[in-house]
Amino acid sequence: MTQPMTLPVPRDRASRKADTLALLATPAVDVWVDTASAAGEPYLVPLSLAWVEGQAVIAVEQSSRTARDLAASGQARLAVGPTRDVVMIDAVLDRTLEVSAEPTLGEAYVAQADWDPRSSAGYVFMVLRPVRVQARREANEIPGRTLMRRGTWLT
Amino acid sequence: MTQPMTLPVPRDRASRKADTLALLATPAVDVWVDTASAAGEPYLVPLSLAWVEGQAVIAVEQSSRTARDLAASGQARLAVGPTRDVVMIDAVLDRTLEVSAEPTLGEAYVAQADWDPRSSAGYVFMVLRPVRVQARREANEIPGRTLMRRGTWLT
Repeated sequence: MTQPMTLPVPRDRASRKADTLALLATPAVDVWVDTASAAGEPYLVPLSLAWVEGQAVIAVEQSSRTARDLAASGQARLAVGPTRDVVMIDAVLDRTLEVSAEPTLGEAYVAQADWDPRSSAGYVFMVLRPVRVQARREANEIPGRTLMRRGTWLT
Repeated sequence: MTQPMTLPVPRDRASRKADTLALLATPAVDVWVDTASAAGEPYLVPLSLAWVEGQAVIAVEQSSRTARDLAASGQARLAVGPTRDVVMIDAVLDRTLEVSAEPTLGEAYVAQADWDPRSSAGYVFMVLRPVRVQARREANEIPGRTLMRRGTWLT
C-alpha cells in the first residue's frame, strides 16, 4: 500500500485502550451494528451507543431486523468511529430486556445517548458483551490492533 | 425520539441523489463492507471505494474473509459516510477479477482510491452492483430515504 503522506507514529496498546474507552463513553456517539440472519444475509445499521460497565447497550424495536438477528444468532460486530480511527468489537448478546425493566440501566443509557427510548412502545435494550476489541487508525496501526481477546483486555 | 436541537429541513430526493453521487465519487473515500458467512457470522471492515460506472469497486485479498463471504453469498451491505449523513447500499456481486485483468477498471480504481493494488499479489477487484440505495442524515430524513429500488433509481 502506498502512503500519500507521512503517517503518525503508531500508538502503543495502552494508548489505544485509553483512546478506545474514551471514545466508547462519548456522549451521543453512534455505533455501527452488524448482524446476519440465519440465511446469511448481512445487515448493518447505525444506532446510539451507551457503554455501561464494560458492555455495549443499544435500544431497538423488538421487531427490527437487528433485534431479530441478535436474538437468533447471539452475535454482532460493532464499529465505532470513522473508518481511519476505528474501534471494532466482536460481541455476544448478554441479555435483552424491556426498556423499563432495569431502571439503572435505562438511566445509564439516557445519560450517554441523545434520546430516551424508555417510553417507546416495542423497544428493548440489548446488552452486548465484548469478546474481541481492535483499534486502529491508518494501515501502520494494523499490527498491535487487538486490545481484547476472548473477553480479556490484553493491557 | 427527542431531538436536542432543531434539525435542518429534510432534503428532497433529487438533492439526496446528487449528494449521494458526489459522496460516492469522492477521492480516497472509504466504504464499510458488511458481509456474512454461510453460517450467519457477520463481518464488517472499512475499505477504499471506487465508484465506477454506477458500481462499487473494492480491492481485497482473495483469501480475506470479505472476499470469501462475497464469493459464497454474492451479497453485501455497504455504508459510506458518517452515521448521521450516510448512504446505505445493498449490493450484489457482479464479478471478481484479477487486479491486472481489466486495465480500464484498474485505472479507474487508482484514480479514486489512495492506493494502488495492481501489483499486490493475491489481490482481486470485486465489482458490486447496487440494488437498493438509501440516504439519510438525522431521524427526520428517514421518510424518503430510498433512492434506488430493485436496481432502479427512483429519481
